[in-house]
Amino acid sequence: MNYKTEKIKHLIVKRPLELDCGKTVKDFTLAYETYGELNKSKDNAILVFHALTGDQFVSGINPITQKEGWWVTAVGPNKAIDTNKYFVICANVIGGCMGSWGPKEINKETNEPYGLSFPVITIRDMVKAQESILDHLGIEKLLCATGGSMGGMQLLQFCATFPNRTFSAIPIACSTSHSAQNIALNELARQAIMSDPVWDKGKYQKKNIQPKNGLAVARMVGHISYLSEKGMQEKFGRKLQEKADYEFSFDADFQVESYLRHQGFKFVERFDANSVLYITRAMDYFDLSKQFKGGLTEAFSNQKTKFLIISFSSDWLYTTKENKDTVIALNASGADVSFAEIKTDKGHDSFLVDEQEFLKTMKGFIDSMHIKFKNEKRI
Amino acid sequence: MNYKTEKIKHLIVKRPLELDCGKTVKDFTLAYETYGELNKSKDNAILVFHALTGDQFVSGINPITQKEGWWVTAVGPNKAIDTNKYFVICANVIGGCMGSWGPKEINKETNEPYGLSFPVITIRDMVKAQESILDHLGIEKLLCATGGSMGGMQLLQFCATFPNRTFSAIPIACSTSHSAQNIALNELARQAIMSDPVWDKGKYQKKNIQPKNGLAVARMVGHISYLSEKGMQEKFGRKLQEKADYEFSFDADFQVESYLRHQGFKFVERFDANSVLYITRAMDYFDLSKQFKGGLTEAFSNQKTKFLIISFSSDWLYTTKENKDTVIALNASGADVSFAEIKTDKGHDSFLVDEQEFLKTMKGFIDSMHIKFKNEKRI
Repeated sequence: MNYKTEKIKHLIVKRPLELDCGKTVKDFTLAYETYGELNKSKDNAILVFHALTGDQFVSGINPITQKEGWWVTAVGPNKAIDTNKYFVICANVIGGCMGSWGPKEINKETNEPYGLSFPVITIRDMVKAQESILDHLGIEKLLCATGGSMGGMQLLQFCATFPNRTFSAIPIACSTSHSAQNIALNELARQAIMSDPVWDKGKYQKKNIQPKNGLAVARMVGHISYLSEKGMQEKFGRKLQEKADYEFSFDADFQVESYLRHQGFKFVERFDANSVLYITRAMDYFDLSKQFKGGLTEAFSNQKTKFLIISFSSDWLYTTKENKDTVIALNASGADVSFAEIKTDKGHDSFLVDEQEFLKTMKGFIDSMHIKFKNEKRI
Repeated sequence: MNYKTEKIKHLIVKRPLELDCGKTVKDFTLAYETYGELNKSKDNAILVFHALTGDQFVSGINPITQKEGWWVTAVGPNKAIDTNKYFVICANVIGGCMGSWGPKEINKETNEPYGLSFPVITIRDMVKAQESILDHLGIEKLLCATGGSMGGMQLLQFCATFPNRTFSAIPIACSTSHSAQNIALNELARQAIMSDPVWDKGKYQKKNIQPKNGLAVARMVGHISYLSEKGMQEKFGRKLQEKADYEFSFDADFQVESYLRHQGFKFVERFDANSVLYITRAMDYFDLSKQFKGGLTEAFSNQKTKFLIISFSSDWLYTTKENKDTVIALNASGADVSFAEIKTDKGHDSFLVDEQEFLKTMKGFIDSMHIKFKNEKRI
């Protein structure tokens, strides 16, 4: 899993980054990807923030995994986020494992992979790092920024920290702070990894191995939480996996078992266990109201950004209620905010799949924002 | 964890048990407990079926763990199931680890613990084994049988297999077959255990050790699923564990993390990892409609038993909808059935805690059934 390849664009950011944990780094690397062309008036840039296990390869074919980008349903030529019209940017988060500064990278001071000597980072740290990309690309103000799940949390943080860097924002299936249940699910994933003796306090990188078993179990936690109960029942029900009847063993008798095992072990090939620890920790620490001691209203004061919040009716990880709480906070701050709940059985995963009502809503909003943004720029 | 102690009542059942997997055992051991006194007319016996991690010690102090019995909220003197009036029986399920025939017991043929050579059992196997207790105690017909979660599944199976052995039944927070999501959660628990190298294909017993890490993670899965999102938020929210601020580490910063770790490692002291595998497998295989090829109506045909089905509004493991499906099936079979949904934020765990509306509903039903049962016996 050595991603030092010409297939990844690296930006060495030579600017100190003050982290929330108190440490400051002098410089750091960001891996990023762009799609489409930035127009001359620079009014067509859209920044995408990725979720927990995402990366910068939003569209087309991911050159590392050779699989489709994680958001091909939404981003590409003639898609909701149309790369024929818009310039789409996505960076791998710091703490990640697709080329950005993270725990599997080499610490120049010790010449060894960071492992647990990597600092515990926050969503704000991630977002501050990513702002550098805009400076690098010469984009003063984005047309839009969007992201689902942790991507949406980054976006809310981005708007709170940099209230003037995006004209519009679409936070999808997210919240302004992680709920107890979400912390619990993340802790479960972390415990699965840290219980694997191969993990060895995060030092496995030195031996060029991965705590595969623990990481696979951690991934299964995610996959269960990304689907709705009804969606799972419709997709798998009690269907058996290529067998006529129960085998009275602990092999995968049911399709849903087979699916989870497959997802677990597929994940191990592309993701780093320590990155799961760092990124889930950042999610758990996310709490805009705590950060802005005046609370959420304070966090969103002076917002010029136009928001569209989207939730999915069957998402039990970031419920409609939690998304509506963000809408309430934005309204209380006097921000310009619309809200759409998409009715679907596809659970939290809805933003990643071909959910037409969602995609149309997003497309309509972005296209209309583009007209407004051009008008604003003209004035 | 050697439970061959005089604190446990053992019944050696010298009767062949035909298991669903095709094997037949000549005899088997059941560990059981009773509370209260069986009256002369034998009209006051109540059988309790325990859930996944339960045991026969329903009330009072569990003599093995020295903790309170798992259902002290409901069973005891002057409780909803009043042991001053009723004779309460509970047996450890086969496949369990509190003295009944299970994977940690010694296989007389090899003189070693069974481990994975223990047959994969089903809910029907468990229930057929437990019927022996009634014969042993000379109880032809129970006043009532009850159980929550897997206990409720056993009860539905008991009624389907032995339609004349209980006058009334209270299946609580359960379903007639395991949903895809529930299979997935069980598979997650099993994978956590089987991924632990100490598990060693179930042979750890011989070395007198336990796959503690995997078993603790498995238990955490359970604890998350037993609470509701709202209940967790109210109980833990984002409260920190005896610290003023984030520690920027992977220790338990949040109370909910600390709670899960504590529950996980407490469980390891009292439960056997292989038993988790066997019991969760039995739950996943449970499907009354598959068993009775005519479907659920067939399963409940000729029922004389009077049913009260109870669900909890915030239970996402065995939802009200699933419980109502059982009610519909019983109605379609012409059975005598009532239904109560208890409004609570306490999730699936509601049946184990001091949930007054639930306890009163159960008490009222049992007491009225007692009068009816006595009348029936008199005629």
